[in-house]
Amino acid sequence: MRILVINGPNLNLLGQREPDVYGAVSLAEIEARLARRAAALGVASLVCRQSNHEGELVTWIQEAPGQCDGLILNPAAYTHTSVAVRDALAAVHLPCIEVHLSNTHAREAFRHVSLTAPLCLGQIQGLGPLGYELALEALVNTLNRPQK
Amino acid sequence: MRILVINGPNLNLLGQREPDVYGAVSLAEIEARLARRAAALGVASLVCRQSNHEGELVTWIQEAPGQCDGLILNPAAYTHTSVAVRDALAAVHLPCIEVHLSNTHAREAFRHVSLTAPLCLGQIQGLGPLGYELALEALVNTLNRPQK
Amino acid sequence: MRILVINGPNLNLLGQREPDVYGAVSLAEIEARLARRAAALGVASLVCRQSNHEGELVTWIQEAPGQCDGLILNPAAYTHTSVAVRDALAAVHLPCIEVHLSNTHAREAFRHVSLTAPLCLGQIQGLGPLGYELALEALVNTLNRPQK
Amino acid sequence: MRILVINGPNLNLLGQREPDVYGAVSLAEIEARLARRAAALGVASLVCRQSNHEGELVTWIQEAPGQCDGLILNPAAYTHTSVAVRDALAAVHLPCIEVHLSNTHAREAFRHVSLTAPLCLGQIQGLGPLGYELALEALVNTLNRPQK
Amino acid sequence: MRILVINGPNLNLLGQREPDVYGAVSLAEIEARLARRAAALGVASLVCRQSNHEGELVTWIQEAPGQCDGLILNPAAYTHTSVAVRDALAAVHLPCIEVHLSNTHAREAFRHVSLTAPLCLGQIQGLGPLGYELALEALVNTLNRPQK
Amino acid sequence: MRILVINGPNLNLLGQREPDVYGAVSLAEIEARLARRAAALGVASLVCRQSNHEGELVTWIQEAPGQCDGLILNPAAYTHTSVAVRDALAAVHLPCIEVHLSNTHAREAFRHVSLTAPLCLGQIQGLGPLGYELALEALVNTLNRPQK
Amino acid sequence: MRILVINGPNLNLLGQREPDVYGAVSLAEIEARLARRAAALGVASLVCRQSNHEGELVTWIQEAPGQCDGLILNPAAYTHTSVAVRDALAAVHLPCIEVHLSNTHAREAFRHVSLTAPLCLGQIQGLGPLGYELALEALVNTLNRPQK
Amino acid sequence: MRILVINGPNLNLLGQREPDVYGAVSLAEIEARLARRAAALGVASLVCRQSNHEGELVTWIQEAPGQCDGLILNPAAYTHTSVAVRDALAAVHLPCIEVHLSNTHAREAFRHVSLTAPLCLGQIQGLGPLGYELALEALVNTLNRPQK
Amino acid sequence: MRILVINGPNLNLLGQREPDVYGAVSLAEIEARLARRAAALGVASLVCRQSNHEGELVTWIQEAPGQCDGLILNPAAYTHTSVAVRDALAAVHLPCIEVHLSNTHAREAFRHVSLTAPLCLGQIQGLGPLGYELALEALVNTLNRPQK
Amino acid sequence: MRILVINGPNLNLLGQREPDVYGAVSLAEIEARLARRAAALGVASLVCRQSNHEGELVTWIQEAPGQCDGLILNPAAYTHTSVAVRDALAAVHLPCIEVHLSNTHAREAFRHVSLTAPLCLGQIQGLGPLGYELALEALVNTLNRPQK
Amino acid sequence: MRILVINGPNLNLLGQREPDVYGAVSLAEIEARLARRAAALGVASLVCRQSNHEGELVTWIQEAPGQCDGLILNPAAYTHTSVAVRDALAAVHLPCIEVHLSNTHAREAFRHVSLTAPLCLGQIQGLGPLGYELALEALVNTLNRPQK
Amino acid sequence: MRILVINGPNLNLLGQREPDVYGAVSLAEIEARLARRAAALGVASLVCRQSNHEGELVTWIQEAPGQCDGLILNPAAYTHTSVAVRDALAAVHLPCIEVHLSNTHAREAFRHVSLTAPLCLGQIQGLGPLGYELALEALVNTLNRPQK
Repeated sequence: MRILVINGPNLNLLGQREPDVYGAVSLAEIEARLARRAAALGVASLVCRQSNHEGELVTWIQEAPGQCDGLILNPAAYTHTSVAVRDALAAVHLPCIEVHLSNTHAREAFRHVSLTAPLCLGQIQGLGPLGYELALEALVNTLNRPQK
Repeated sequence: MRILVINGPNLNLLGQREPDVYGAVSLAEIEARLARRAAALGVASLVCRQSNHEGELVTWIQEAPGQCDGLILNPAAYTHTSVAVRDALAAVHLPCIEVHLSNTHAREAFRHVSLTAPLCLGQIQGLGPLGYELALEALVNTLNRPQK
Repeated sequence: MRILVINGPNLNLLGQREPDVYGAVSLAEIEARLARRAAALGVASLVCRQSNHEGELVTWIQEAPGQCDGLILNPAAYTHTSVAVRDALAAVHLPCIEVHLSNTHAREAFRHVSLTAPLCLGQIQGLGPLGYELALEALVNTLNRPQK
Repeated sequence: MRILVINGPNLNLLGQREPDVYGAVSLAEIEARLARRAAALGVASLVCRQSNHEGELVTWIQEAPGQCDGLILNPAAYTHTSVAVRDALAAVHLPCIEVHLSNTHAREAFRHVSLTAPLCLGQIQGLGPLGYELALEALVNTLNRPQK
Repeated sequence: MRILVINGPNLNLLGQREPDVYGAVSLAEIEARLARRAAALGVASLVCRQSNHEGELVTWIQEAPGQCDGLILNPAAYTHTSVAVRDALAAVHLPCIEVHLSNTHAREAFRHVSLTAPLCLGQIQGLGPLGYELALEALVNTLNRPQK
Repeated sequence: MRILVINGPNLNLLGQREPDVYGAVSLAEIEARLARRAAALGVASLVCRQSNHEGELVTWIQEAPGQCDGLILNPAAYTHTSVAVRDALAAVHLPCIEVHLSNTHAREAFRHVSLTAPLCLGQIQGLGPLGYELALEALVNTLNRPQK
Repeated sequence: MRILVINGPNLNLLGQREPDVYGAVSLAEIEARLARRAAALGVASLVCRQSNHEGELVTWIQEAPGQCDGLILNPAAYTHTSVAVRDALAAVHLPCIEVHLSNTHAREAFRHVSLTAPLCLGQIQGLGPLGYELALEALVNTLNRPQK
Repeated sequence: MRILVINGPNLNLLGQREPDVYGAVSLAEIEARLARRAAALGVASLVCRQSNHEGELVTWIQEAPGQCDGLILNPAAYTHTSVAVRDALAAVHLPCIEVHLSNTHAREAFRHVSLTAPLCLGQIQGLGPLGYELALEALVNTLNRPQK
Repeated sequence: MRILVINGPNLNLLGQREPDVYGAVSLAEIEARLARRAAALGVASLVCRQSNHEGELVTWIQEAPGQCDGLILNPAAYTHTSVAVRDALAAVHLPCIEVHLSNTHAREAFRHVSLTAPLCLGQIQGLGPLGYELALEALVNTLNRPQK
Repeated sequence: MRILVINGPNLNLLGQREPDVYGAVSLAEIEARLARRAAALGVASLVCRQSNHEGELVTWIQEAPGQCDGLILNPAAYTHTSVAVRDALAAVHLPCIEVHLSNTHAREAFRHVSLTAPLCLGQIQGLGPLGYELALEALVNTLNRPQK
Repeated sequence: MRILVINGPNLNLLGQREPDVYGAVSLAEIEARLARRAAALGVASLVCRQSNHEGELVTWIQEAPGQCDGLILNPAAYTHTSVAVRDALAAVHLPCIEVHLSNTHAREAFRHVSLTAPLCLGQIQGLGPLGYELALEALVNTLNRPQK
Repeated sequence: MRILVINGPNLNLLGQREPDVYGAVSLAEIEARLARRAAALGVASLVCRQSNHEGELVTWIQEAPGQCDGLILNPAAYTHTSVAVRDALAAVHLPCIEVHLSNTHAREAFRHVSLTAPLCLGQIQGLGPLGYELALEALVNTLNRPQK
């Protein structure tokens, strides 16, 4: 079982960026925690990527089918504006869980809409770094279920 | 640590109701799984309630502060229509996580709006019964953190 | 063949309530007329209920599958606001016909939207108490058709 | 008692047109059933017309007062777009019942609005060909009531 | 100088149709008054037409350039719904004045929008039959002005 | 002269609930103050009720005509969502004044709309507990005026 | 018969202001033409006023009942923004005709709405200075009709 | 304690203006009643002003801090259109209560929005002239409370 | 292979009508070009019709299945307003391509919506008379593909 | 080179009014700074005016062409509501630059729309008193450029 | 004659991506077909590019004037979201035709809006790979026409 | 004092691109002018960058805190569509001024909204290349003020 974690724009600043919104934990720490949980869950490979470029997120999602069995995706700002990322998710047939560190429902109205979530299995938001770990557990759980 | 789980209208039908949307697991089974996870996480008390009445959900949330340290809430249909449940959440000062079995972003437009989520820590949706367990882990994690 | 008739809020006031909108016939009289028509149509059992509580309407619809073969539903005010009643209709698989005494298209704009009608076979409105009788005939007609 | 039945665009195709939406019964059969019911109800004259032209529907409604005592109208597509048909209904003072074969509330959003229904006594929809018969019964019932 | 007057749907009913909205004067009387005023203004030819058919209004406007020097148009219901009449007006290069008997601003919101008025010189509304006469004076005045 | 005071959801928490929005005075204290003012104004009977259930508010309003001469109503959250409470007010013919403790115009946009206020004589908001007393004075004043 | 003509903001600039929109005729010339037509129509007194102040327009309308029998009003920019002018028109019971020099339907969308027109008998627009004269004829015609 | 009462456009016509909407009591009578109540409440100075000019209302509110301790404001039509009055209220730090004679929620939709109310302590509407007296009592009550 | 070409309102004026929008080529010339291309593509029969009547377009589409194998449709103004033409397309099961001479996306906002396009295979717009020829090639191409 | 500076409602309160929004500098100080900058830039005459009256702003703009070569305009609240000020700007042909002290994009949604800015050369906002000086430099720069 | 073909995000996946929406033909095959057609049409150079990056599409369009005489553009997801691509099209003065493989009118509402189409000559959609060939023919046809 | 100037998509084309909208001055010339003004203002370092890539703008803003003391940002097309650039601005704590060469309020409606401006100190638009120089002066002025 191989999992790809894709983080969108500005998430490379975690820990520095608006800590009262996004928390004080850096992306590297989140990835380290995720790696520990992945090991505990028997995940063979966990790859983490981050980009500020919409087009790069699209390309990584396109290439994912040959490289992993499932996706954890935090499209950040592109959640609300990117039809391209949405279309990439529709083009590949990998289970994907969307994660947001903050509770988007408690923020500006334009963050209440997710163009990408309808193409995912589900969404976890507002639970900080732990949200990634919970998404990982859910994804492993899904991949371990007999496919229908 | 005591946790209260409140389920809203029609969730008593789980397993029978639209199984391709909500899955084939009954509410009793979900509660049993949650109880096992709660025990593993060291939760002293886990109480689960379900009601079809908006007013009853309001009352249970009002009474929660004396009875538990945190809430897991699936307001179901009232997510999208109940200012009263929202106001009850605002009135008590308990950490709460909102759960939905299905992925509301992939359903009718009126389900994309949550009146209650802005008053919660976060939201987990589309991950089926496992979503409750993940919410429990997140809630325990929050309650174990030193309060600021 | 067993039929359940469920009436929503304020319909217990029929005959007294805004008679130029809803007419001068009481709910008891409507039920009596319906009973006569039911007998004429060979309906074995006709049960009529009314509640002002959204949650009670939800519960009655949930319990209907074991108790009847079809529903006549006038959700009254909840027609326009209740996702919970809509979800209950989606959860049971009984044929249902929605009835309104007044012509909602000739009233306030918020009454032009029905959250529940999409889950019903059809809708009869503006024909006063006779609307219930016509709904009964349509329901019996549907139940007598060979199921596909 | 004389009744005029007016059907709008594409209803001449009934039985052929989208049978899973509109059913397999032809317009001629519907008219034959209606004629039998009219006879049973003591209706002296039942005339049925169909046109694809908005202007023709307008003209027929204008001429109706001298030719009948009440109208059954299925404006089909013009329900949602024709102010002209609406104005024609406002100009004559005949009781009219609007009928739709399909349940418009379960279809595209633009079919949820009826420009013509506010000028009718009421509306029956989603009950297939039987809807016309029920409308006839309601119309006869109205015409037999002492006028106020 | 030749003038064509085109009246849209239901205006043939004037005098009978909703007299508190449209007044008690028939279309024939309006045309007679217009003819007298036309004579007084030195108009060589005044032709008046009425149709309930959108397509016929379109055709008459298309044919107008060879037959008249200016148009008086009351599109009635089609004012608010007909792109086809609007496009016909754009296709011919005749001065046109739009007339409404009633004050559309004091009626339903859908009557506040005119698709045709932007293609006319101006609009007169709410002044009853006299509105046509005033439009005629304005049209003659325009046609008598040296063209720029 | 008999007055009924009906309070909606979450108002039982007054004094505890968001004190910077709703103040530090409990519902019992408000009712005690109201009782004193009622006595001073010569009100024979003052009954105060509170419920979190929309249906219960509907029922109490329905039963009011036999029990009181006027209503003071704070529908709280149901102000913005309940057609059922609105319909109950329309069904009874009692003078009613709507009260809100906080200034709803200074809060979320969904609180700017009141479904119930159009059925009341008037509305007092933002004046805290004193608002009830002022509503009482206005109601007594209305009931003492000779009816037209 | 006495007529008051009230012109709103920027109409004092006529002739200079955007001549391709408003024409090259000054307000003084328009008033002179109107005076000639008034004399021809037997109007005893014609008073013309112009102000850039919304409040002054309100005051003049308020004072009109003692000073004239009818109003011609071009509220200019205040047509689209002034509830105060609208309320003044509702407060007095004088027949009023609204005039616009340009065709507002052919301009920006915010000019398609008139707050004041619903309180007038009718509206003439797009016919330039002649529009005032036609409004005068319509107003005299109305005042000469036996009042109902 | 000094109170300033500011009334907006058309309120000088009270008693004459639309008496079924605004009542038959003149502004002078309202002010006289208010003066009596002010005396009873121990108010040292009560000044009442009315203007049809938005700018004058702005200026009076600006000058209020040196002249009074609190405001009663009925902005009338400017309630719904004046950002300038709103900004004036934000600029001064005086407690203010908004009053409307009629129940704006029962009138046109554009009257349901108040630009000024969010800057006031609260709002009283629909209670006629008594509304001013109740606002006075509330204002005195607020000013007598120890400031926080 | 037989093809029917249906043109809607005002297209009979091509060449005369707004030549900077629609070009200088007449409908007859377009049909002649199409005939040549049809011959080159091996189309057995090419019939071209034009009507200003919505109802006639509906009728021609209804009758098409017996007369041709595919449709080229330019509904012109009815593109944006006709549910009736849309319903006719849904009723027949012929491949259809929608053509517009001008680029509707570069014109008024109401032309950006097509009620008919969702029922067509595709749409060609803004390419002038050549658009019909390209549509013909695409239609022939579709009809020559083995049906799935 | 002569410049006119026009400030709208409530700007006379600068320094006192909401200092965290508008800063602590008074209007007199802003005008003094502007005068110094004007002298440095070789401006022959700098006149500054402020009014709370929409009509007065309109009049000053109307009179500007004879008195100055360019305008600096801060319409304050009227930015968002005044068609009259917009029309005055359209009527005169003077270069104008709009200034706002605060950043309107960071405030309430109704402040994001400017009715007047489309008639100006450009807009400077959020830069406090310096914004006026920068506008002056831009205006002088424009007036010194050879006119095209 | 040189033509540049630019394809946007996810079009590199053609043949694999949602084949029931986009067909089973790969982008390479489409380019091969286009090359054959280009040769037949006498096109000297045909260059095809694809990118998932909005910025790269912008850059290619900017550089196009020196490299080609016309553009075929399928902006894919960026059709609906990219003002930057739109602005690039406005900046260069090359004829461009927009192509979509699927019929966007038959898909989600957000795909009905094209930000780029208003800057193109026209648009072909829903005709699959053939659409590119037809666009090529139209572009060649345009470039061969004498420029006006 | 170090300043970073970031220009978004298509601004590299300045001088060539739509010169009647954006002027005839190239980006290099603007940067040269800015450098001269920076020197005059005592700015130690002025770095100018331009990119067509949203992601590159995000990265540059992220990296700015270590490299400069303030930002001048013209996000061009991304002003209206980029939540990612907005989030980058929120993540760094540098003063930023938004500049637009053209007056966006006088262009298409979608250009009236700025997602980025609320995160800036202020905005200058419509003043051409000079706008950058004025922004520089304002930024230097801000940075020279003692920080609060």
